[in-house]
Amino acid sequence: MSAKTDTRQQILDTAAGLFHSNNYADIGVARVCSDAGVSKGSFFHFFPSKRDLALAVLDQFRERLAARLIGAAFLPSIPPLERFDRFVEELYRYQAAEKEAHGVMPGCPFGNLIAEQASQDENIRAKADGILRSITHHFRATIADAVQGGELPPLDEMATAVAMLAYLEGIQLIAKSRNDPELIRTLGPAVKSIRIASGS
Amino acid sequence: MSAKTDTRQQILDTAAGLFHSNNYADIGVARVCSDAGVSKGSFFHFFPSKRDLALAVLDQFRERLAARLIGAAFLPSIPPLERFDRFVEELYRYQAAEKEAHGVMPGCPFGNLIAEQASQDENIRAKADGILRSITHHFRATIADAVQGGELPPLDEMATAVAMLAYLEGIQLIAKSRNDPELIRTLGPAVKSIRIASGS
Repeated sequence: MSAKTDTRQQILDTAAGLFHSNNYADIGVARVCSDAGVSKGSFFHFFPSKRDLALAVLDQFRERLAARLIGAAFLPSIPPLERFDRFVEELYRYQAAEKEAHGVMPGCPFGNLIAEQASQDENIRAKADGILRSITHHFRATIADAVQGGELPPLDEMATAVAMLAYLEGIQLIAKSRNDPELIRTLGPAVKSIRIASGS
Repeated sequence: MSAKTDTRQQILDTAAGLFHSNNYADIGVARVCSDAGVSKGSFFHFFPSKRDLALAVLDQFRERLAARLIGAAFLPSIPPLERFDRFVEELYRYQAAEKEAHGVMPGCPFGNLIAEQASQDENIRAKADGILRSITHHFRATIADAVQGGELPPLDEMATAVAMLAYLEGIQLIAKSRNDPELIRTLGPAVKSIRIASGS
């Protein structure tokens, strides 16, 4: 890895950690530079604005989500509905590890940024929305497999996928409000009971 | 109403609107004072800090929630499960009216502040958590009525109430990510299908 790539990655990793365990608005470029040990000149060379940094941080969270949580759960070798149980378990482990490291459960990085910035910044809203939609595609494919295998009755597969994602976002939000990741483990598996009928 | 009460209420209403249609961190005391037409001296007479203002804003949102949404939906005269449909319809109307007024759907004021501040500010987390818990008490009483009337099978009433609230918070978050309140109307009624079994 070149020194240039190292610096950009160092800024990204620092910002991702700060935004996630705090929030976006309260963390300024000066704080990111100070914690990352880079100059403002170097920062603005890689990221013309704080918003550009936020969009890159979202991309990095998406890549890690795909590689770890999605990659560990949505495997054709696992029976369809069990994939959701695996995904819930991965969500729990991730949030529990973050709480262990920082003392607070941070919640979903995409959900957090939507709640904080979606009505303020159209670029951030659109990027985070696109990432959530990409997650629903994995859910939908899994639901289709479950319907095909008779594990689920015929239903509106896309709407059910969105409803399931909403439930898991909500669970993470309530768990954050209690600073208690155990709630993800207790309530998460019920995601499999959510069904939106066709034509509803 | 005295002039003193008027000034405090004017600050509260201004801050509630600004925090809800933007966010909390990006709105400073100077902006609240300017929009409310009050001096900083007057502001700090009523609210020693911005956090005190946030806590008062949360209380005001709770009172309005109780008077309007909860008051319109959780009535003994309405069959238990229909109360949830009524609540979803009220949530939809509220978010649709906010989008009509501001161009953006703001989402749940409690959920937003939790996502943004729960890992930063323990006072705000505890206050918002308490408000969400008070909502689950209405849900739980309704679920108990539904179980008693045979509309629902015996289940873990408290856990189901929390899961239902999580679902409705998640629906509002996904609707905010799409800036589309219609999602509340389409997906919200499925809240009635969520069940957490006893002992799970």
